Amino acid sequence: MQNEHFPSKLLENAVDEFARLPGIGRKTALRMVLHLLRCELSEVEEFGQAIIQLRKEVKHCNVCHNISDTETCSICSNPARDRSVICVVENIRDVMAIENTRQYNGTYHVLGGIISPMDGIGPNNLEIESLIERVKTGEVIEVILALSTTMEGDTTNFYIYKKLKNTDVNLTTIARGVSVGGELEYTDEITLGRSIMNRLNYFDTIK
Amino acid sequence: MQNEHFPSKLLENAVDEFARLPGIGRKTALRMVLHLLRCELSEVEEFGQAIIQLRKEVKHCNVCHNISDTETCSICSNPARDRSVICVVENIRDVMAIENTRQYNGTYHVLGGIISPMDGIGPNNLEIESLIERVKTGEVIEVILALSTTMEGDTTNFYIYKKLKNTDVNLTTIARGVSVGGELEYTDEITLGRSIMNRLNYFDTIK
Repeated sequence: MQNEHFPSKLLENAVDEFARLPGIGRKTALRMVLHLLRCELSEVEEFGQAIIQLRKEVKHCNVCHNISDTETCSICSNPARDRSVICVVENIRDVMAIENTRQYNGTYHVLGGIISPMDGIGPNNLEIESLIERVKTGEVIEVILALSTTMEGDTTNFYIYKKLKNTDVNLTTIARGVSVGGELEYTDEITLGRSIMNRLNYFDTIK
Repeated sequence: MQNEHFPSKLLENAVDEFARLPGIGRKTALRMVLHLLRCELSEVEEFGQAIIQLRKEVKHCNVCHNISDTETCSICSNPARDRSVICVVENIRDVMAIENTRQYNGTYHVLGGIISPMDGIGPNNLEIESLIERVKTGEVIEVILALSTTMEGDTTNFYIYKKLKNTDVNLTTIARGVSVGGELEYTDEITLGRSIMNRLNYFDTIK
């Protein structure tokens, strides 16, 4: 949509702003803006304010660096959570995904990305040093690596391993394999290979 | 994503607001909100304000009902545009689409929808009466119907035809046919049928 004709400068501004969002083209942006135009003014104000307020007031937990409304997030400050286990993830979406399983009762450490020299992201741009500090307090028994299985994820895992190998913490990684309900013939070879390599004692899985 | 765990109430609010937009699910909404969190505060404020300002300040042209920053839109107030021709469209996206062709020098009339009893939209909910008023001023020679070719569009066309049949205005409709560069074998039967029925003198097309 080059040289598009906008009947209003205000409309064009709003479309420009929406079109900056990831995965939103100019046509979708226009559709969204026209939708908001049909809404009540109070609704549109709530929309705009919700975003501005979030950006202004949101904090990062001073322990795990997850997004939080308070200095220490609700997970880190919950006495029922097991502080001896830390699950290392890239971003808060990963925290939400694991929380939604309701299978994990430990704490998290959000790195804020993974080591990626191509994008200029080194260990110092991530929350790795604070992870090492947390482990060195001595309270931690296990660190679970849950980063993506890409070259960058593997690099980050290895970097953390090197930093922690002289401590007596237990370093584990989440299981990779055929998804529950997944069919063998549609599973990629690497995943299927890992599933066979890391096979479990059947008796352990039905206990 | 039922019972999703949000680490922050502010985050959840912002995601809720984005998820109300058309075609945006909760996962996409979260992706957008996290993108905005990584932006500068000034950028996020511009984003929020652009939308609120648009909703607060935008006007509808008092002639054609297109969106406008001024009482009369830039098309209706442009002396170079031919006021004797009115193109009737459903919404401002249609105006933008036609403007982008740079092939039309007349004016528009934005109905704000089409007659759709299923959705409770009757002629009185649309800007049809104001169209009839415009035509009755006597300045108008031609009214071009450019509504969608659905039952609702046809109903609206017929309603306008009935209202205007006693005036001496020329009522036309945009040509439907095989698109330029389109292949016959992939064109639907109705469109291809219309293309043949409404065939043109070849000599006229190369003049």
